[in-house]
Amino acid sequence: MKALNIYNPVKIHFGAGLIGETGKIAKKYSDTALIVTGKNSMQKTGTLDKLVKILKDAGVAPIIFDGITPNPTTYEIDSAAGIARGKGIGLIIGLGGGSPLDSAKAVAVAAKGNIPVWDYLKTTAKEALPVITIVSTSGTGSEVNRYSVMTNTETGEKPGFGYECMYPKEAVIDPEIMLSMPANVTAATGFDVFVHIFEAFTGKAKNAFSSAYCMQAFYLLKDNLIKAYNEPDNIEPRGNMALASALAGLAIDISGVGIMHAMEHPVSGNYSNVAHGAGLAALALESMKYNLNACKKDFMLIAHHFGIKRAGKSDDEYAGSLIEKTKEMLSALNLNIRLKDLGVEKDKLRKIAKEAFDTMGFAIQNNPAEAGENEVLKLLENSY
Amino acid sequence: MKALNIYNPVKIHFGAGLIGETGKIAKKYSDTALIVTGKNSMQKTGTLDKLVKILKDAGVAPIIFDGITPNPTTYEIDSAAGIARGKGIGLIIGLGGGSPLDSAKAVAVAAKGNIPVWDYLKTTAKEALPVITIVSTSGTGSEVNRYSVMTNTETGEKPGFGYECMYPKEAVIDPEIMLSMPANVTAATGFDVFVHIFEAFTGKAKNAFSSAYCMQAFYLLKDNLIKAYNEPDNIEPRGNMALASALAGLAIDISGVGIMHAMEHPVSGNYSNVAHGAGLAALALESMKYNLNACKKDFMLIAHHFGIKRAGKSDDEYAGSLIEKTKEMLSALNLNIRLKDLGVEKDKLRKIAKEAFDTMGFAIQNNPAEAGENEVLKLLENSY
Repeated sequence: MKALNIYNPVKIHFGAGLIGETGKIAKKYSDTALIVTGKNSMQKTGTLDKLVKILKDAGVAPIIFDGITPNPTTYEIDSAAGIARGKGIGLIIGLGGGSPLDSAKAVAVAAKGNIPVWDYLKTTAKEALPVITIVSTSGTGSEVNRYSVMTNTETGEKPGFGYECMYPKEAVIDPEIMLSMPANVTAATGFDVFVHIFEAFTGKAKNAFSSAYCMQAFYLLKDNLIKAYNEPDNIEPRGNMALASALAGLAIDISGVGIMHAMEHPVSGNYSNVAHGAGLAALALESMKYNLNACKKDFMLIAHHFGIKRAGKSDDEYAGSLIEKTKEMLSALNLNIRLKDLGVEKDKLRKIAKEAFDTMGFAIQNNPAEAGENEVLKLLENSY
Repeated sequence: MKALNIYNPVKIHFGAGLIGETGKIAKKYSDTALIVTGKNSMQKTGTLDKLVKILKDAGVAPIIFDGITPNPTTYEIDSAAGIARGKGIGLIIGLGGGSPLDSAKAVAVAAKGNIPVWDYLKTTAKEALPVITIVSTSGTGSEVNRYSVMTNTETGEKPGFGYECMYPKEAVIDPEIMLSMPANVTAATGFDVFVHIFEAFTGKAKNAFSSAYCMQAFYLLKDNLIKAYNEPDNIEPRGNMALASALAGLAIDISGVGIMHAMEHPVSGNYSNVAHGAGLAALALESMKYNLNACKKDFMLIAHHFGIKRAGKSDDEYAGSLIEKTKEMLSALNLNIRLKDLGVEKDKLRKIAKEAFDTMGFAIQNNPAEAGENEVLKLLENSY
């Protein structure tokens, strides 16, 4: 019987229009807040201005750091942490998709210490400023877990890390914010949810708690992802995908990710224009084929929950039908892409394979099927 | 779209032999601990002695309060709280089934304040001593949630209450402790898990998070409850039922209970020899019949997960087959009983119906089918 430890202290608030409550929530922690966000979408949609007003109305003085890029770098995080330290900020608010949210947690750690954020890959962080997440996409799961992914400005390495002190205090999940998500972002981040479910549900570290989250997230995703993509103004599928993202985020907080994430991080680490979900889309089908024999029953169970009829299929055929179904889903989301389509250079694949082990080795360890550097290189080549 | 708030900060540790870690865990919080436990089983099985040694070895000085009865009274709780206050105790450890665990949380609140514990039904508790739970049965869910149920020594009223400060800090779930559970306790507490799942999954306050826990708990319960009853020394079903109990405990922490719990509390409040799970067993079938039309789809979904074949059944028949299946489960557990068999007096039923509203009104509000005092009386009569 496998021992297990479960802990997630995030206060999750879900509801349309809930961003309005952020002022009251923030005030519990501090009179000053650093808003960590990106350069574009939260400005364009007016969400950033709205948040600033909400905070001011509640008596919280906001400072904006809007220098987070899609694959946030150690330089950006250390810069924001320097501002937080210098101004004596008491609260970090992450606003946006996975990148600002991940960054907010890393900034909260770095602001408390006196070493560059990269050093926390080797030094355990014991304390961090409180963090509130306000998520604008449905995919990352970062809104409810302790993980942060950052890219080393000098080397292109893109590891994930997460300590207990990095759990957000509160997560504000407001599906109205997601109504403005562009179609390609809905697709890529939504597919990230699928991969979180798949990897947490099939990984070696799976357990009853992560499986509970995975199955519920999957129920929501199968009925709502393509709908959210096709009906961007419909708040119902937006809300359900937001819940699926949070549930899958809780699942990976417990049971981690696998080989798809291990390979994708160095892809988008080296090619910063690649969206994480798009990178996953290019890698998913080959990775699923690779894993099929190691967790056939899990494949069959997901196929069953997907509503795929068994009807005379052998175990192998039925498990394999999940890969077919995933391919259909990718087509419906306009995500049937290969690494080549993302601008990845073929002669970089060996470097990417090596970095998958160097920076995401724990995810390869967790993968249902064993893989060495040559197998990973092969998967990258087959996905090219 | 329904707004929702999710929060549960309990650190859950699950594993065979894990009680050995309790010293290390306790030491994080205090050098002194009050062990709140019952009068019999933890002594007989040697678990209490073991815990005392583990704590001492870790440098935590334990004081034992072993005056908790099966339906703990305000007198017992106030007595224990007085000891904790008087001795300047820094940590409460609940050891045993639902009664000591519920009591530990109530003691932790009362020890911090200066008013009788009963007054916290009307006064919000803001702080409590830290609590560690070590559960010996698989049913209550109390090990992972904030709820406490207590019986008023003078009136026999048996309400539930729970504040944010009452969450246990850590829960130690060690299935080896459960190996010594007597068969009737395995049956009654295990059926309590079933009712937690049923009521959280069908109640008005259900949501994606509680449903995730319910479904996973149900998967574990359907394959393991009767097995744990028939094979008491087999640790595998014991462990799975312990996980089911925790998952269902998280579900009711989010979405509450329904009419079965509302009626059962005054039953065992007035008849303190009645085990909570046995009271639920007497009330379950009539309550399910009463709720069937209000949540037929949920019934059908649970029937499906139970593995009941649809095969030509109408919706009504298929939903109804869950009640038949529940009856079979009760028979297999030797729990096909009526209120009469539990020693309840028929002329007390009106008092019980009234108290269900007075002390558990929130649970009746949450029930899928509306019910007034007359309907509840009718249910009690039909269950007699």
